[in-house]
Amino acid sequence: MNKKIIITGFEPFGTDKINPSWEMIRDFKSDKNEIIKMCLPVVFGKASEILIEKIKEEKPDVVVMFGQAGGRKKITPERVAINFRDCTIKDNEGNKPQDKYIIKNAPAAYFSTLPIKKICRMLKNNFIPSGISNSAGTYVCNDLMYNILNYIETENLKIKAGFIHVPYIREQVFNSENFFMELDILKKAAVLIADSF
Amino acid sequence: MNKKIIITGFEPFGTDKINPSWEMIRDFKSDKNEIIKMCLPVVFGKASEILIEKIKEEKPDVVVMFGQAGGRKKITPERVAINFRDCTIKDNEGNKPQDKYIIKNAPAAYFSTLPIKKICRMLKNNFIPSGISNSAGTYVCNDLMYNILNYIETENLKIKAGFIHVPYIREQVFNSENFFMELDILKKAAVLIADSF
Amino acid sequence: MNKKIIITGFEPFGTDKINPSWEMIRDFKSDKNEIIKMCLPVVFGKASEILIEKIKEEKPDVVVMFGQAGGRKKITPERVAINFRDCTIKDNEGNKPQDKYIIKNAPAAYFSTLPIKKICRMLKNNFIPSGISNSAGTYVCNDLMYNILNYIETENLKIKAGFIHVPYIREQVFNSENFFMELDILKKAAVLIADSF
Amino acid sequence: MNKKIIITGFEPFGTDKINPSWEMIRDFKSDKNEIIKMCLPVVFGKASEILIEKIKEEKPDVVVMFGQAGGRKKITPERVAINFRDCTIKDNEGNKPQDKYIIKNAPAAYFSTLPIKKICRMLKNNFIPSGISNSAGTYVCNDLMYNILNYIETENLKIKAGFIHVPYIREQVFNSENFFMELDILKKAAVLIADSF
Repeated sequence: MNKKIIITGFEPFGTDKINPSWEMIRDFKSDKNEIIKMCLPVVFGKASEILIEKIKEEKPDVVVMFGQAGGRKKITPERVAINFRDCTIKDNEGNKPQDKYIIKNAPAAYFSTLPIKKICRMLKNNFIPSGISNSAGTYVCNDLMYNILNYIETENLKIKAGFIHVPYIREQVFNSENFFMELDILKKAAVLIADSF
Repeated sequence: MNKKIIITGFEPFGTDKINPSWEMIRDFKSDKNEIIKMCLPVVFGKASEILIEKIKEEKPDVVVMFGQAGGRKKITPERVAINFRDCTIKDNEGNKPQDKYIIKNAPAAYFSTLPIKKICRMLKNNFIPSGISNSAGTYVCNDLMYNILNYIETENLKIKAGFIHVPYIREQVFNSENFFMELDILKKAAVLIADSF
Repeated sequence: MNKKIIITGFEPFGTDKINPSWEMIRDFKSDKNEIIKMCLPVVFGKASEILIEKIKEEKPDVVVMFGQAGGRKKITPERVAINFRDCTIKDNEGNKPQDKYIIKNAPAAYFSTLPIKKICRMLKNNFIPSGISNSAGTYVCNDLMYNILNYIETENLKIKAGFIHVPYIREQVFNSENFFMELDILKKAAVLIADSF
Repeated sequence: MNKKIIITGFEPFGTDKINPSWEMIRDFKSDKNEIIKMCLPVVFGKASEILIEKIKEEKPDVVVMFGQAGGRKKITPERVAINFRDCTIKDNEGNKPQDKYIIKNAPAAYFSTLPIKKICRMLKNNFIPSGISNSAGTYVCNDLMYNILNYIETENLKIKAGFIHVPYIREQVFNSENFFMELDILKKAAVLIADSF
């Protein structure tokens, strides 16, 4: 085994019945790296607490977090997480923070420590639409990314970590005009990304 | 064998290297119906001449013509073909008709004789985005559809015929933000449609 | 006075409180032509009956019908009206025809007799987005256009007539991400179009 | 006079001949506040140097920076500027930084100190589409915003400052399907925003 990698997806939220970020990794196996898979709750603070516990336990080399960004037209590695919570829909435990810092007196933002441009290039070389995003939003995805990067920085760990948003899959939006990718393509992307470490 | 069906796609045109309307049917086999496949040239008048010759020869029950409509977000059976040629890019033999009738003194339009609503419903039941289109444009796709429906009507034949536009596939547009479907989904749609007769 | 022109808009329909197609012409005055303005009901058949009565009475040279096409990004003269009624929302008297001909045994379609390319060119020369549309839909707008063109053709009149769809205006959609034009621009377009005859 | 406010726009860049962010303020006068207007060069580092000089000289209460974000469908106050330069087109002096920090060892981001939610609400109350943006990009707009907020923070000044992106105006994109707003609406927005202090 080369590397120990934690990859995470989310459970469904809002009105959705599935979350492609979990579906795309739930059956994932790697011949190259040791993979630990987690399906995290869409709950402010809680998602990162659970993942931080696992990081303490497993001491991974890399943490790749996936999340759904409905409406996006590409697989988008996030460049930065900001110290902010602001949302228009409740999380899965009914929280709806508005205009709050995630952690008071902590840095305004952390940059992803994944090789985001390399990931985009690799996906496009495989004919998979990809591009860097400059905003992970202000909902639970950004919350998770910020908290994990803050933990790694604060603890001075040597773990590479970052967040990658993925589009809807066809089964979620076939009755609309929304953009989607096939689940199979997301699965292929997950393999390409995890095996690139 | 139940029915004899001619299904057609087009060769690539404009700046495209492939045409999903042909790729989706080129390997198609049916256990149910007798299928005759054709790849037609993107040339005003010529596409329909070739197909009319084949119709005379084969006397099919059904003619299903596929074409690419880049930018569309669904598989779209066309409701109507209009007696008009007007284009902004040349066809594959350099023709660029502007504001011309296809056939002078012929009807302004013909309605598809395929069960277009049934086809949409069936595709959506299979989680494939689909919806009726009210315009096949004024390029070679509309030209083919109009000429074939005019021939069938004029000759008073009992052939059901119509045109179905399909979106780009991923390989064509992965480097843009254009909508696409996987070729596999288009292939599945072709089977569902052809086997519904 | 040069020409006698009937210009029509529609009353609001669906969930909308205003209809830009009427707002854009309600105060319209021309120094050049004699203008007769009408606000038509969004009711299948009825809109055209009222307009046909007015045509009989006024014997205009030109009939320009405007309607709202929410989602369009340009002012779009329609090329063709088709002999078809099919809708997903009720008209203003509760009718919801599905898969019906407008007039049995009548032609499948009529082409606009307005100079649609000239109108587009003129609007674009004035920095107003414009382009030809190949489908007026299958709701009341298409119904009106078809019936009027059928009447003029059947009666063998020398009246130029056609339909022009316009986008939402800002007041309707400022709280969404929908495309809109300012009412002032639509008013300017109405003047440019009416004074071009 | 209530407050002293510096408002800035940018000169044109890329292939554009005008920049709405300057056009919207160039003739602006306020009865309420003292307004200092500046048209800044689209050059990394230079735009902020010029503005910082002016801030030193004028000691304003508020700095509102406007910039063009082609493709946006709303007037979007930016929430955050990040310490990053990365671009695909050159600035107006030929610079094209890739994957660079703006200031090494400086914070990853600064939050706007303008009341961004209040501004959005006020604009929407005036039927002007508006919404918060979570990314000012990684081009000169973000560069200016970051440098100004960094200067104010570092110098411990009591100046409120932030950046607001605006869409294309019609004259720039009437020949495409791009979203636009009328210049008059942007001018009205500028007045509403400046007079809200």
